[in-house]
Amino acid sequence: MTSKISFIGGDIRMPEAAKFAAKKFDNILIYGFDSFKYCYDCFGIKQENNFASALDGVDIVVFGLPYSADGKNIFAPYSEKSIPIDDVISQLNDGAKIFGGILNKYIEEKAAKKNIKCFDYFKREELTLKNALITAEGALAVAMNETSHTIHSSNCLVIGYGRIGKMLSDMLRKLNANVSASARKESDLALIECCGINAVKTNEIGKNIADYDIIFNTVPVCLLTKDILENVRDDTLIIDLASKPGGMDFESARYLGKKIIWATSLPGKVAPETSGKIISDTIYNILNE
Amino acid sequence: MTSKISFIGGDIRMPEAAKFAAKKFDNILIYGFDSFKYCYDCFGIKQENNFASALDGVDIVVFGLPYSADGKNIFAPYSEKSIPIDDVISQLNDGAKIFGGILNKYIEEKAAKKNIKCFDYFKREELTLKNALITAEGALAVAMNETSHTIHSSNCLVIGYGRIGKMLSDMLRKLNANVSASARKESDLALIECCGINAVKTNEIGKNIADYDIIFNTVPVCLLTKDILENVRDDTLIIDLASKPGGMDFESARYLGKKIIWATSLPGKVAPETSGKIISDTIYNILNE
Amino acid sequence: MTSKISFIGGDIRMPEAAKFAAKKFDNILIYGFDSFKYCYDCFGIKQENNFASALDGVDIVVFGLPYSADGKNIFAPYSEKSIPIDDVISQLNDGAKIFGGILNKYIEEKAAKKNIKCFDYFKREELTLKNALITAEGALAVAMNETSHTIHSSNCLVIGYGRIGKMLSDMLRKLNANVSASARKESDLALIECCGINAVKTNEIGKNIADYDIIFNTVPVCLLTKDILENVRDDTLIIDLASKPGGMDFESARYLGKKIIWATSLPGKVAPETSGKIISDTIYNILNE
Amino acid sequence: MTSKISFIGGDIRMPEAAKFAAKKFDNILIYGFDSFKYCYDCFGIKQENNFASALDGVDIVVFGLPYSADGKNIFAPYSEKSIPIDDVISQLNDGAKIFGGILNKYIEEKAAKKNIKCFDYFKREELTLKNALITAEGALAVAMNETSHTIHSSNCLVIGYGRIGKMLSDMLRKLNANVSASARKESDLALIECCGINAVKTNEIGKNIADYDIIFNTVPVCLLTKDILENVRDDTLIIDLASKPGGMDFESARYLGKKIIWATSLPGKVAPETSGKIISDTIYNILNE
Repeated sequence: MTSKISFIGGDIRMPEAAKFAAKKFDNILIYGFDSFKYCYDCFGIKQENNFASALDGVDIVVFGLPYSADGKNIFAPYSEKSIPIDDVISQLNDGAKIFGGILNKYIEEKAAKKNIKCFDYFKREELTLKNALITAEGALAVAMNETSHTIHSSNCLVIGYGRIGKMLSDMLRKLNANVSASARKESDLALIECCGINAVKTNEIGKNIADYDIIFNTVPVCLLTKDILENVRDDTLIIDLASKPGGMDFESARYLGKKIIWATSLPGKVAPETSGKIISDTIYNILNE
Repeated sequence: MTSKISFIGGDIRMPEAAKFAAKKFDNILIYGFDSFKYCYDCFGIKQENNFASALDGVDIVVFGLPYSADGKNIFAPYSEKSIPIDDVISQLNDGAKIFGGILNKYIEEKAAKKNIKCFDYFKREELTLKNALITAEGALAVAMNETSHTIHSSNCLVIGYGRIGKMLSDMLRKLNANVSASARKESDLALIECCGINAVKTNEIGKNIADYDIIFNTVPVCLLTKDILENVRDDTLIIDLASKPGGMDFESARYLGKKIIWATSLPGKVAPETSGKIISDTIYNILNE
Repeated sequence: MTSKISFIGGDIRMPEAAKFAAKKFDNILIYGFDSFKYCYDCFGIKQENNFASALDGVDIVVFGLPYSADGKNIFAPYSEKSIPIDDVISQLNDGAKIFGGILNKYIEEKAAKKNIKCFDYFKREELTLKNALITAEGALAVAMNETSHTIHSSNCLVIGYGRIGKMLSDMLRKLNANVSASARKESDLALIECCGINAVKTNEIGKNIADYDIIFNTVPVCLLTKDILENVRDDTLIIDLASKPGGMDFESARYLGKKIIWATSLPGKVAPETSGKIISDTIYNILNE
Repeated sequence: MTSKISFIGGDIRMPEAAKFAAKKFDNILIYGFDSFKYCYDCFGIKQENNFASALDGVDIVVFGLPYSADGKNIFAPYSEKSIPIDDVISQLNDGAKIFGGILNKYIEEKAAKKNIKCFDYFKREELTLKNALITAEGALAVAMNETSHTIHSSNCLVIGYGRIGKMLSDMLRKLNANVSASARKESDLALIECCGINAVKTNEIGKNIADYDIIFNTVPVCLLTKDILENVRDDTLIIDLASKPGGMDFESARYLGKKIIWATSLPGKVAPETSGKIISDTIYNILNE
């Protein structure tokens, strides 16, 4: 395609996204990576350092995930210059398109005035699913790195059977762990059984909690309360994958001396390349609808 | 539990359901199996042949799936006597409970007048899920029986990625087939890829249709049109798992001499015992809510 | 390749083998299928009905599996004419090559006199392995067809952990059965555990024999003795995959009313096409060494 | 069991082995861990610091893996004192038993004079198999940690289809990588295909070498020569699991700037607890034969 696309700011996933976008679009540049050590020119991506040039005649602008951390500037951790949201909007042509993660009303209203359409790629189910896959693989790597035993034959509990819980349970089982997964609804418990995994009601996870070698939490609700944590073995590893406020009474966990790891935002950390590809693919899907 | 439960009519799954119910309830009887050759007494289930006794003092009555085939009588293919719906209702005590598959307004309204609660177990997601599992295994058996090659290394297409499509694709892949699955939505296509399966857009299944050794359809919409069927190889097996009207232009398929099997209602045929267990489990779940 | 190849006799696998050979060799014919209903001409295979023509100028002759059932004639169940071994040898040119299954000294010595090399494809490990795969899939199909429950969640015992035992256990586990496999050697028991399967010492299979829903035997030694069979549940299915003398006390099993199936020679029955391909591939490998 | 067992020296796996042995034997002590920070008393294991007491009345002595690094002293990296082999032998009672890894003639001959039996647990197939499992999991963790993409969808080549190659290929495939494995023998290539993996002849790995995202080598022969390495992509990760001399031309690999990791002796590093359990189990098996 011939559209001119600017990737403005974001973390390490965005140059990767640009790299994959460059396979489908002729005219790609990135801006906001002046303090980033890697050179992406080799992928046919021009690194632009001049703000005006970076937005001149651009059809599509792509921000990172999240698009802004402070509500005023575009999130650009690898740039020494700040990139005010308002400046970007004012530079853009009428009718351009904005893609970003976790967009808010502020930018949407600003954009609407110039007939600029905003698309939040983070709201797309295909991106959420593939991020779940990366998170599950990342959780597996954390478990491998932080235990002195194999996944094989270990007793694992996965709390929550949403996207991440499903994929992680499946991976653990395929690596021959003894896997239990918890859910509240009868239909989810049935699905867990259909997948060959031991189903546990969420309100009964405390019952056999001392049996597990590794506990993965995926639910952002405090299910691992002090009472339950007291019965977790000291050599058990608890990996919390839930976003804030997490899934356990962290204070008690630390006081009790439990082995806990709060592993959030894994996709950008463990597989920035795949994460970038997913963002690029999602934008491509949106453009084709 | 001490409730008195009568299983009235239904196909071979119902004595199996009664068998499993007998593990949890003390007082189980079945009625409507006077021409059924197997004896279930060994499981502690009393086979009652007198209609009045079968319903006397009963707390719970369980019908088959569907509960009625003609709208007037309880479905009871293994009974030589007819069992009018109205007679059952009038015999039941006020406050009793009815469980059945595919209940309709007729029985619900009759029951309501006597303060009898009706529960349609076929509407429950846990039953639907486990039926999907049985259907997927049954489809696998059909494929094994009806081809002269192994599932291993065969090229399979699964049309539709709902419950059955998901489970069947997963089984085929685990048996080392080359599996493609089709879906319409981008999010489903992403999920297919997350499961390690080749994703095909439903409106593009015609493109490589000659590559497949086995085609499984799970969508009750005519997607395998004459145009597409013409390009299916003559030695390809097409297994249609969709309920009426099925998923292909059957007339053209037959005219073209394609190998087709319309395999519906597999759960009761391929695994009546497991099917019965699922019905029993679902009733148990409903009673415990 | 330009060699002229004649497939002489054998069962239904041989025309299938010829079909695959026809993709690599220009000049293929089959003889000994005069009473076989299917026409293989469509695959570019000439069906020859004249004995002399079938062997005239032939570089390679391929017999079935076994090459002979009576020691005098080529095994040719689909021919009304007998095909004496001696006649074939005398027709063949010096320096031709013979491929066959379970060759014996008789033909090898006859052939040696004319400088004809004999190759027994049944002795080749790659054929044995792939036959094991077909057998394992066939055993799975038998289990699915002959039980009223799903493989999923069923308790399965696989006796013997050779090629078939390994592949079958793996398939059962992937379909979410609870799988135990037995072996005698500690190293095999360790391998079973490495594959995520419950390991049982062969001399201890009697201990929990009443737990299993399906028992598969792969060892041609009577391990399921009367004592053990007495404790097998009546609704348990026993599938014996071992060649003669099989792996159980059949007389006692029948007397005790157990559900037994002696399923031998599955490859030719359940997947003749794949079996034929394997024979063709093996011959090709031998020719290329 | 009532035997008195001393674990003398070895790396971190040995206290773990002692921990598991303590579940089966009453009288366990460890010696040679005076500079080791963890306390194993909690597992019922006495840490003895006096050499004479450590061997007094001992029935069984267990050395590490290897039993000696210099041929004179017992390998004891966590001890500040040296432990001469000769001193141990002279302290042991006649008729005691020695277990160790990679034993040699020196100790065997010394021991024989006192009627002490020597058992090399490293020669046992069950230990080798389970070490292969740990190595395969460890290799997976290395791959996850050292790449910026997921294992899912990545193109992987596993060179060599021995124990490690088999288990690693299987894990990669289950995590939905596109897996190729190489072997020399036709029978191994057939086995690879039976496992649903793409088979590559070892002498042809160079052909598509640029396709792979991750290359795992398991063969201690230089198969990745300079010619082949030149065609490996710069972003490809090569993980060499082979013991000395490894499986590639390391000098060329470094000169060409390839991403290489030589990951040897993984079991003790990635899963010392499981490794210790395996050593303990193996000793137990030997004692029971």
